[in-house]
Amino acid sequence: MRKQDVLAILAQIQAGELQPKEALLKLRMEPFEDLGFAKIDHHRELRQGIAEIIYGAGKTYEQISGIITATLNKEKRTILITRLSEETADKLKEIFEFSYYEIAKIGIIGRIPPADGIGKIVVATGGTSDMPVAEEAALTAEMLGNTVVRLYDVGVAGIHRLLSHMDDIMEARVIVAIAGMEGALASVIGGLADCPVIGVPTSVGYGASFNGLSALLTMLNSCASGVSVVNIDNGFGAGYLASMINHI
Amino acid sequence: MRKQDVLAILAQIQAGELQPKEALLKLRMEPFEDLGFAKIDHHRELRQGIAEIIYGAGKTYEQISGIITATLNKEKRTILITRLSEETADKLKEIFEFSYYEIAKIGIIGRIPPADGIGKIVVATGGTSDMPVAEEAALTAEMLGNTVVRLYDVGVAGIHRLLSHMDDIMEARVIVAIAGMEGALASVIGGLADCPVIGVPTSVGYGASFNGLSALLTMLNSCASGVSVVNIDNGFGAGYLASMINHI
Amino acid sequence: MRKQDVLAILAQIQAGELQPKEALLKLRMEPFEDLGFAKIDHHRELRQGIAEIIYGAGKTYEQISGIITATLNKEKRTILITRLSEETADKLKEIFEFSYYEIAKIGIIGRIPPADGIGKIVVATGGTSDMPVAEEAALTAEMLGNTVVRLYDVGVAGIHRLLSHMDDIMEARVIVAIAGMEGALASVIGGLADCPVIGVPTSVGYGASFNGLSALLTMLNSCASGVSVVNIDNGFGAGYLASMINHI
Amino acid sequence: MRKQDVLAILAQIQAGELQPKEALLKLRMEPFEDLGFAKIDHHRELRQGIAEIIYGAGKTYEQISGIITATLNKEKRTILITRLSEETADKLKEIFEFSYYEIAKIGIIGRIPPADGIGKIVVATGGTSDMPVAEEAALTAEMLGNTVVRLYDVGVAGIHRLLSHMDDIMEARVIVAIAGMEGALASVIGGLADCPVIGVPTSVGYGASFNGLSALLTMLNSCASGVSVVNIDNGFGAGYLASMINHI
Amino acid sequence: MRKQDVLAILAQIQAGELQPKEALLKLRMEPFEDLGFAKIDHHRELRQGIAEIIYGAGKTYEQISGIITATLNKEKRTILITRLSEETADKLKEIFEFSYYEIAKIGIIGRIPPADGIGKIVVATGGTSDMPVAEEAALTAEMLGNTVVRLYDVGVAGIHRLLSHMDDIMEARVIVAIAGMEGALASVIGGLADCPVIGVPTSVGYGASFNGLSALLTMLNSCASGVSVVNIDNGFGAGYLASMINHI
Amino acid sequence: MRKQDVLAILAQIQAGELQPKEALLKLRMEPFEDLGFAKIDHHRELRQGIAEIIYGAGKTYEQISGIITATLNKEKRTILITRLSEETADKLKEIFEFSYYEIAKIGIIGRIPPADGIGKIVVATGGTSDMPVAEEAALTAEMLGNTVVRLYDVGVAGIHRLLSHMDDIMEARVIVAIAGMEGALASVIGGLADCPVIGVPTSVGYGASFNGLSALLTMLNSCASGVSVVNIDNGFGAGYLASMINHI
Amino acid sequence: MRKQDVLAILAQIQAGELQPKEALLKLRMEPFEDLGFAKIDHHRELRQGIAEIIYGAGKTYEQISGIITATLNKEKRTILITRLSEETADKLKEIFEFSYYEIAKIGIIGRIPPADGIGKIVVATGGTSDMPVAEEAALTAEMLGNTVVRLYDVGVAGIHRLLSHMDDIMEARVIVAIAGMEGALASVIGGLADCPVIGVPTSVGYGASFNGLSALLTMLNSCASGVSVVNIDNGFGAGYLASMINHI
Amino acid sequence: MRKQDVLAILAQIQAGELQPKEALLKLRMEPFEDLGFAKIDHHRELRQGIAEIIYGAGKTYEQISGIITATLNKEKRTILITRLSEETADKLKEIFEFSYYEIAKIGIIGRIPPADGIGKIVVATGGTSDMPVAEEAALTAEMLGNTVVRLYDVGVAGIHRLLSHMDDIMEARVIVAIAGMEGALASVIGGLADCPVIGVPTSVGYGASFNGLSALLTMLNSCASGVSVVNIDNGFGAGYLASMINHI
Repeated sequence: MRKQDVLAILAQIQAGELQPKEALLKLRMEPFEDLGFAKIDHHRELRQGIAEIIYGAGKTYEQISGIITATLNKEKRTILITRLSEETADKLKEIFEFSYYEIAKIGIIGRIPPADGIGKIVVATGGTSDMPVAEEAALTAEMLGNTVVRLYDVGVAGIHRLLSHMDDIMEARVIVAIAGMEGALASVIGGLADCPVIGVPTSVGYGASFNGLSALLTMLNSCASGVSVVNIDNGFGAGYLASMINHI
Repeated sequence: MRKQDVLAILAQIQAGELQPKEALLKLRMEPFEDLGFAKIDHHRELRQGIAEIIYGAGKTYEQISGIITATLNKEKRTILITRLSEETADKLKEIFEFSYYEIAKIGIIGRIPPADGIGKIVVATGGTSDMPVAEEAALTAEMLGNTVVRLYDVGVAGIHRLLSHMDDIMEARVIVAIAGMEGALASVIGGLADCPVIGVPTSVGYGASFNGLSALLTMLNSCASGVSVVNIDNGFGAGYLASMINHI
Repeated sequence: MRKQDVLAILAQIQAGELQPKEALLKLRMEPFEDLGFAKIDHHRELRQGIAEIIYGAGKTYEQISGIITATLNKEKRTILITRLSEETADKLKEIFEFSYYEIAKIGIIGRIPPADGIGKIVVATGGTSDMPVAEEAALTAEMLGNTVVRLYDVGVAGIHRLLSHMDDIMEARVIVAIAGMEGALASVIGGLADCPVIGVPTSVGYGASFNGLSALLTMLNSCASGVSVVNIDNGFGAGYLASMINHI
Repeated sequence: MRKQDVLAILAQIQAGELQPKEALLKLRMEPFEDLGFAKIDHHRELRQGIAEIIYGAGKTYEQISGIITATLNKEKRTILITRLSEETADKLKEIFEFSYYEIAKIGIIGRIPPADGIGKIVVATGGTSDMPVAEEAALTAEMLGNTVVRLYDVGVAGIHRLLSHMDDIMEARVIVAIAGMEGALASVIGGLADCPVIGVPTSVGYGASFNGLSALLTMLNSCASGVSVVNIDNGFGAGYLASMINHI
Repeated sequence: MRKQDVLAILAQIQAGELQPKEALLKLRMEPFEDLGFAKIDHHRELRQGIAEIIYGAGKTYEQISGIITATLNKEKRTILITRLSEETADKLKEIFEFSYYEIAKIGIIGRIPPADGIGKIVVATGGTSDMPVAEEAALTAEMLGNTVVRLYDVGVAGIHRLLSHMDDIMEARVIVAIAGMEGALASVIGGLADCPVIGVPTSVGYGASFNGLSALLTMLNSCASGVSVVNIDNGFGAGYLASMINHI
Repeated sequence: MRKQDVLAILAQIQAGELQPKEALLKLRMEPFEDLGFAKIDHHRELRQGIAEIIYGAGKTYEQISGIITATLNKEKRTILITRLSEETADKLKEIFEFSYYEIAKIGIIGRIPPADGIGKIVVATGGTSDMPVAEEAALTAEMLGNTVVRLYDVGVAGIHRLLSHMDDIMEARVIVAIAGMEGALASVIGGLADCPVIGVPTSVGYGASFNGLSALLTMLNSCASGVSVVNIDNGFGAGYLASMINHI
Repeated sequence: MRKQDVLAILAQIQAGELQPKEALLKLRMEPFEDLGFAKIDHHRELRQGIAEIIYGAGKTYEQISGIITATLNKEKRTILITRLSEETADKLKEIFEFSYYEIAKIGIIGRIPPADGIGKIVVATGGTSDMPVAEEAALTAEMLGNTVVRLYDVGVAGIHRLLSHMDDIMEARVIVAIAGMEGALASVIGGLADCPVIGVPTSVGYGASFNGLSALLTMLNSCASGVSVVNIDNGFGAGYLASMINHI
Repeated sequence: MRKQDVLAILAQIQAGELQPKEALLKLRMEPFEDLGFAKIDHHRELRQGIAEIIYGAGKTYEQISGIITATLNKEKRTILITRLSEETADKLKEIFEFSYYEIAKIGIIGRIPPADGIGKIVVATGGTSDMPVAEEAALTAEMLGNTVVRLYDVGVAGIHRLLSHMDDIMEARVIVAIAGMEGALASVIGGLADCPVIGVPTSVGYGASFNGLSALLTMLNSCASGVSVVNIDNGFGAGYLASMINHI
């Protein structure tokens, strides 16, 4: 129930068509959508206007294609599907017009919208093996209307690689720092940049990396101010948050 | 060495007073300050202009008063000291004009500047025992030029307390969600708000809260988009980041 | 040895057919079954009367079909098999009349009995991926004579979904709250409801969910009174306990 | 805002005194209390009628005495204060009529009400050092109107101690099983009893007990059906839940 | 109730003074002590004949002196009190004849009995800081009738120290290997000896010793056959088990 | 180099055929085998006389068959191979006379020797799924000359199952208590028996059993004296140690 | 940009072809390579002169063959590829002259260079199952110009095996001690040798070895001076560091 | 027994004064010191010549002064005492000529010897709070004959501080990198330097630093080659190892 619907009910009271008690009952049935929570509307608009987002992990081909069909019927033309397996993507391609980004495991229906954020988002990674998470973050941010600068393989064990991109770092509005193993990238970037830095630990590595725990702890303990952290491998979350900050 | 110094060296070459090889040697000696890293300058200005920040934990009275004196000599009039013990604060009061906030364990010399951020920062806590961390965040944000709305004791175990503040949540530019024990506050707020939410797990609790680990994991696993996390009890870090986002 | 047997031995002493010392020896041999533990009988009745329960995990087709045959021979007509693989279920279907619930991985021989509990049991989940655990809980409860209301995908990151079902929550006698990732559902429901809430953390998630550890800790740290927790993914245990409380 | 208030607003519309748009705005301001959440009222009554509960940990003498005064002013005569230090208790005694239970660290103002639960609650412990947690559970349950049977020091390392109380176990409506170290008590009791068993791990022990983690894991892994677990040392939570089940 | 008491009841039946049904009721009241569990008797004899053991940790002076008085009244002359603080020991000395072993924190009333075990027990430690645990083990074993050979400070970081005691190791019937930090002593001794080796990890150390966890894991992973492990710092348990094996 | 060889060298000195300095050099080259370490000889005899033991995990068919051939050539007729996969066992059967125990994953060449231990070894398990570990322990003990009594599926959640075997428990010389999940079996048996109890945690279970960690911690925290623990799933180690104790 | 390029720029100033301000801008663009960091050059030389190293894990056949081709084009003739799967190796063999070391999963193009280190590097392992890590270390060290002595299967559970190689240990310049399970090898060798010992924990083992965590903690807690540790299974890192120390 | 003693025994055989069998017995009694293990001698010389090292933690004043007296009697004039409390140091000063370094908690009797290592050792820290560990490392290295360059407070969150010391880093023979919290310093230095880097995690920090665990994992996961790690807070171990590498 939208705001208009609530107003309609209230108008019915005004018009004498509905008793206050009956109206109360109706309103209590769907208390939240009725009252038009800004967020819900906002989200709906945000997503309807720009892109519907589907979290593909654990969903079958049938479920995903069902959601896509329903979404397209609602006149939404842009859909972002994360954590989409290659197998399911192949099947979807037979029916829908569809781009599949293998490394990011992201499928996109429709076009990436023009960037309307305040500034640039830098997505930086410690190594090339962090690229799947980085591409998930970068494509998400691009789909939500951001210009993304990719700085891959600039890990702190070879600090000159990172330092040679100081211009990008200084110009960024938000930086997503993605790293597995020792995860120090977020701290070092946090010390260099003067914008918010979102750390994404990755499960890349072996031994005492404990599937990303090491990088996670490192990032949480960052001595640089302005650094916060999302879940291990959560490229989507970082891209989404970066876009949010870039659209404030 | 500042930019001018580098230019001076280069000018000496131009003037024939210095050989390129000698110049190279000089440049290598202090490669970074020479080239004038934006961030360093920026930080210096930021902090000199507004407030010097001293991390008080583990510093003796002598060390802290020394830093204060040096700072005041540099014509900075506003200083924020975090994690300052009551004992040290009492001694400092004998010498400096000084406000001490017991709950936050923060000392402030000079005046809180007028707010110049884009919007409001909401600082919300799950319980009253999270207040020390919350006040650290709130005072930090206020010292860095932000309007702060405090929503304390709105934990999810009594969701109506939180929901009765929907207006504050909907109007916020950034929200700092602080909670120990089960730490679900960040998720719930993340689901309600459409601005960035910074989760701060606290070490409040007992038993399986494991000194904040439980709340930390909860916040990292938040299913709501737009939520990121800083270290356990890191109120300062959250306040600083919130201010950064509110000043973009 | 049952009570009668003990009495028989004591009677033999009385009749002078047995010496006290010999009797003592006999009694020590089987001290427990002799004295007729209430629980054993009770359980036997409970399960014989309503349903035999087989934990299928790690059991071969031969083992399970053997137990089924033995049970049916004892005139028990209703059998619940948990954690039953599809392969084994397919083989069992060739011999027995049999319903297999794929999502819950539960097999049922016989009919679900009419509900005879005091009130309704609500089974709520944070997301759709928690459904296997939820269905295990719900079917178990139904097989033990309970009316179950399913509230799926009402996770706290979109609190309005949960709040729109306040009626079900207020009317429930027991609630099973099932969630992975941040696991805050149990706390929020615990704060809304005034009946016992059984939290079931699930291993759904990735990264810092650490296979359900995050949700487990969250639920254990719930600030809401009336919440207790069972093992990760233990839908059966929650359904069984819920039924126990609903039949007190 | 209560239901009547909402009705009043709706009546104002009906009476033409208020425009629907203005009404909508008013309704959105306090969406939750307006609609009269059952739980809030229910809890208020429950606690006002029987006992106000104050969690004393981390609260100063001033805070606690303030809450007590406010509560007594509201005509509530019975107050339960948990985790109350001896020092604070001594000060409170100077002002209020007051019983302090040292072992449980519980203070009680007013009288323990007559028991009105369905049956008896058994509180059992593995050792004597678990008594503080056990007394917290037992006194809480008694304050909420339950008959409590205490079975202390019946740990599984001397199983005959437990078995000699089979009658109590068989007669119980709910059992709270409290144990540190290996924590097996909950499992063994769960296997003997046919009522809900609430396990409370305690932080008693040393070495690999890891402050209650060992007992916690043991209880969560209980193979006996009907066992659930609350936080380490959470005697209050167990007593509250037990009372809830005993009053269904 | 002792065996004789059970026999007396059975004799009463025989004598026609008691009906079997009444007898059964009496027997069920105290089912376990009645039936004379071998272990209980054995323990009782073992302890009554040789030594009463009191676990002193967490017990007040009043509790301990009460148990001592009660024990002495039962004509037991030898009592071993573990984990006894110096303060309590000092008070006890004023009343009882009493030896206090500071390092082991053990108090002994009466005399250490002559050794009657099959062979010698070797108690070896990695360092001198493991001595408190070692002395707890050694004194316990001596109190239970064993000859103990102490090999202290023979840690594997200076393997020659251990190897120079090969004779003791080869002659031992049981070896208690006590070590903190890396805890490798149990493995090395396990590889050298051909008798059971009981590993006792200690909480000695700092940093990544994690209060004994490191040594515990090391000992559990011992590649040498014949090694088993008790809880961190559990010198008493190791001494008791060693005595048990030495008296088979 | 054996004792004789050392004696031969010394004899050469005596005979004037070797200078002391040359002799010293020779002795230093192989300092350990020279001096005839009892353990090495003992083990050799022990294994040569009774059984050669091969740890099969991670070894290829070629490696295992090579070791078998070499062993048989040395006139040893009895070989125990642990953790042997069915595939490798099938290949070995084509060449060697060979019994393969599927559940235990143990292969045996030659005959199980007659039992020559002091008493009986009881191998008890909490559930049927612990059987692979239990059979590894039992077969190992039998191969090393012990009579083994198997008590399977006597877990503490149905304590009467265990108690009905009190005779076996009271008569045992050593008990191996094997359990996953809550692992309380070792404690309960430790409280009932008066012989050494070797706990073997198993990785059976799910969720918060954390692959045996829960059972491991439970067993280490056993309040019953006489209990020690080996590595998770280490049936061989328990069987070997039990045999060692039974042959003292 | 190399040193020459910086000099060229400076020379351009000298020659009046470039203004200092323009020069500064150019220098800032690539501040690091410009200034000729010693390490980068050094490494380049080190690797160009001796061997290019490729970390093969997670790289596709196409990526690896591309890097090889590029490297060979730069006139480097020796390439070391670590963590190279057999499948990829097979494909590479079709194109390049190539040795593949199965156990170490290392591929080598070109020849192992003559040893030019100061002394010998000993690579020792606790068991045969540690060989893959050991060979990774040994081959890496050999490729970097070292003589390597392999001491495999000298675990501390049979200390005589290690002691019979005292000569090798005493002569070594650096020792790499590789062990899983209890990981005590590093400590024991650290106590025997007077050269640096690099511990490499391996993920070999089961149960409480927790994929190498146990061995890692053991090595970190080594009481022997001169021992340091690299990541679990990091044979390459140990071999590289050993070579570094051996070439000082 | 020293080499001479062994030779004496062998000479006795040669002289016919001792039978080979008797000689064998004597040799077996003290097998290790007899054969003159190089390391023992070496160590003895190393320490006697330069400095005796006493680990002061957990030692009483009496124990330490006893060791000092004994050492001085053996004509050793230089003694290093680590982890020495201020209280004990004050008492020692009354008797011995003695320097006490408060920050490092190190006491030194005698003079720091002239540096005779190959090159310089750099000791770098992330923050000023890491200084106690750093000074322990630096003073240890100096006492063992090394020139030490201290680079304190050069943490990676302000990378320019570190980079401005590139000369020291490039010239170092060994670097000790000490850091708590995120511990990234070791990685960054490892990437800059071409000498061995010894990482020392410190327990400095709060929250998710988990007493040094975070820094430990970071350092173990360092992507830079040439980095190894010692125990948390183990400054002595790092200084000792650095000296060892610097004296190869």
